[in-house]
Amino acid sequence: MFFEGSEKKLEIVIKRSNMNSLRNIDQSFWTEVVEASGAQILSSVHNNHLSAYLLSESSLFVWDDRIVMITCGETKLIKAVHTFLKRFPKEDILSLIFQRKNEYCSHLQKTNFFSDIDSLKGVFNGKSFRFGNMDGHHNFLYHLDKKFTPSPNDYTHELLMYHLGSDAKAIFCQEGQEKSNIREFLKLNKYFNGWKIDDFVFQPYGYSLNAIKGPHYFTIHVTPQEEASYASFETNLALWGEHQNYGFQILQAFSPESFDLVSFNDSLPERPFQNNNYLVKYVKEKLNCGYEVQFKQFIKKDTTAENAISIS
Amino acid sequence: MFFEGSEKKLEIVIKRSNMNSLRNIDQSFWTEVVEASGAQILSSVHNNHLSAYLLSESSLFVWDDRIVMITCGETKLIKAVHTFLKRFPKEDILSLIFQRKNEYCSHLQKTNFFSDIDSLKGVFNGKSFRFGNMDGHHNFLYHLDKKFTPSPNDYTHELLMYHLGSDAKAIFCQEGQEKSNIREFLKLNKYFNGWKIDDFVFQPYGYSLNAIKGPHYFTIHVTPQEEASYASFETNLALWGEHQNYGFQILQAFSPESFDLVSFNDSLPERPFQNNNYLVKYVKEKLNCGYEVQFKQFIKKDTTAENAISIS
Repeated sequence: MFFEGSEKKLEIVIKRSNMNSLRNIDQSFWTEVVEASGAQILSSVHNNHLSAYLLSESSLFVWDDRIVMITCGETKLIKAVHTFLKRFPKEDILSLIFQRKNEYCSHLQKTNFFSDIDSLKGVFNGKSFRFGNMDGHHNFLYHLDKKFTPSPNDYTHELLMYHLGSDAKAIFCQEGQEKSNIREFLKLNKYFNGWKIDDFVFQPYGYSLNAIKGPHYFTIHVTPQEEASYASFETNLALWGEHQNYGFQILQAFSPESFDLVSFNDSLPERPFQNNNYLVKYVKEKLNCGYEVQFKQFIKKDTTAENAISIS
Repeated sequence: MFFEGSEKKLEIVIKRSNMNSLRNIDQSFWTEVVEASGAQILSSVHNNHLSAYLLSESSLFVWDDRIVMITCGETKLIKAVHTFLKRFPKEDILSLIFQRKNEYCSHLQKTNFFSDIDSLKGVFNGKSFRFGNMDGHHNFLYHLDKKFTPSPNDYTHELLMYHLGSDAKAIFCQEGQEKSNIREFLKLNKYFNGWKIDDFVFQPYGYSLNAIKGPHYFTIHVTPQEEASYASFETNLALWGEHQNYGFQILQAFSPESFDLVSFNDSLPERPFQNNNYLVKYVKEKLNCGYEVQFKQFIKKDTTAENAISIS
C-alpha cells in the first residue's frame, strides 16, 4: 500500500494578552485538533517552553503563543484550523501559515491545496504562493494577509529528502528495527546530547521523532518504502549556521537523490552535501506577513543509465 | 481553467495477413475509437503510407498495420483500446504499448495509469514499467508481454518540454495568432519543405500540428498557458541523427526550463541544447516486446533566485 510521506504544515501564532498560555490548555483540546485532521496522538514530551506531540501521521508542537503542526499520509490538516477556530476567535490569530508540499501521488489525496484554501475563504483574507515549478518539487504556501513582526530569532528550516540512499533504506526498511539502531544511525548522541527525544517505529515501516530542548525542536519523519522513499527534517535551530554540521550529517546519512531546503527568515547554503549535487531551482519571496521564505531544490549528480522500475 | 498538456500515448501493431490495411477501414471506425477516449477528429491529411487525424486533444496516425494515438487533457485514452478490440481479436495484435507521462495535476485526471492498466487485465498479459522517479518527470509504460521483432527502421522519438521560454510564450499566448506566424516560428519551411501539414490554433490558446511525408510523421502540441506551459514533439524520424538540426532548432525555439527525451530503438544525444542544461535522470530498458526504450530528463542551468508564483 502506498503511503504519502510528503507533509502539510500549519503554523499559528496567537495574541498573548487574552490568555495565559496555549500550554495550559487541557490536552483533550489538542486531541480534538489532531483528530480533526485524521491523525492520533501517540505520545508526548514536555519542557518549560513547549510540548511536543508525536502523531500517527507526524507531529504537533505547542509553545505559549504558537503551534506548529505537521501531518502526512491522507490527513486533512486544514480541518485542524477550523477546530482551532472553535476556541480562538480569528481576531486573536496574529499569524497563520499553511504549507503543502508536492505529493508523490496527489490523485490519492482527499483534498488539495486549492480546496484546502477555499475552506478558509469565508474566515480569513489570505495570500497564496507556489515556490517551485509544478513539474518539479514545489511548496504551496498560504498566509494570513496581516502584518506581523516575527522576533529576530524566529526562523525555521525544512529539509525534504526524496529517494533515500541504500544505507538509509537498509536501516529503515528492516522490519522490527530497534529505536537504538536508528538513533545511532542518525548520530543523535553525538549532536543532540541533553535533548528530550520521543520517537516511534511504525509497522511495517516508518519512523517519527520529536526532540526538544529549551524553546527549540527538531522533528524527523521517514517513509522508507522503495517506490516513494522520503524523509524530512524540520527545526527552529540555525540548521545551516551554528548547526550546519548536523545538516551535512543528515544529508550524508539519508543520501537522497533529490532534496529541497526551505527556510523562513534565515539563509540557505549555496550548495550543501559535498558539492555532489546540482541546484535546479531557487525561489525567494518576502511575504507581507513578515517572513522571507527561500526554497532551493537540489538533484544529486549521478546520471549513469539505470533500469526502469518494474511495476508488474 | 487548467488544461493538462501531458499526453497518454498508444501504439498498436496488427497482423497483416487477416486484412488488407487499417487504412481501408471506414473513417467512422476511427471516429468511434477517438470518441471513446473523449476526443473528436477535427481534420485529416493522407498520403500513400498513412493517414493523420488531428484531434481536439492531440493526434491519431494510421498506417497499414499500425496506429499511434496521442491524447492529452482529461481524455481516457485507454478506452480507445477497448473500442479497437471490438473489431480486432486480440490474437491479431502483435504489439501494444501504452504510455502515460507524468501530469502537472494528476488529481484532476479521470483515470490514472494503474486504473488504466487494470482495465486490460482480463484481456492481455502485459508488463508495466516506470521510467524516471515519481518525484520528477517520469513515463509509465505498459506493453503486451509478447515477442515482437520491430523492423530496423522502426524507431520513435518523443521530446517533452516543460515551462516554455518567453519567445515561445509570446507567439503561442497571443489570442487569434495566425498559423503562418507559428509555422514561421517553428521554421517548418526551412526544415520540412514538401511535407503535408495540418495544423489548428485553439481558442483562446493551444496549437496542434500533424505533418506527414512518405511513411514519416511528426506532431507538435503546445499548451502555452503560464501556470503549466508544455510542448511536445513526436516523430518516427531520426531526430537526433539525420534530423538533429531540427531537434536543436525546436529546443531553441521553445527554450524549456526542463525537457525529457524518450526514444524507442534509437540513440539519444549526450547533451543537446548547447550544453546549457543538466542531465538529471537517465533510464534505459530493453523490453521483451522488442523495443529498447531510453529516457533522459534535462534541466536548464539557470538558478538565479526568482520570486514565488502568486496564486491569489
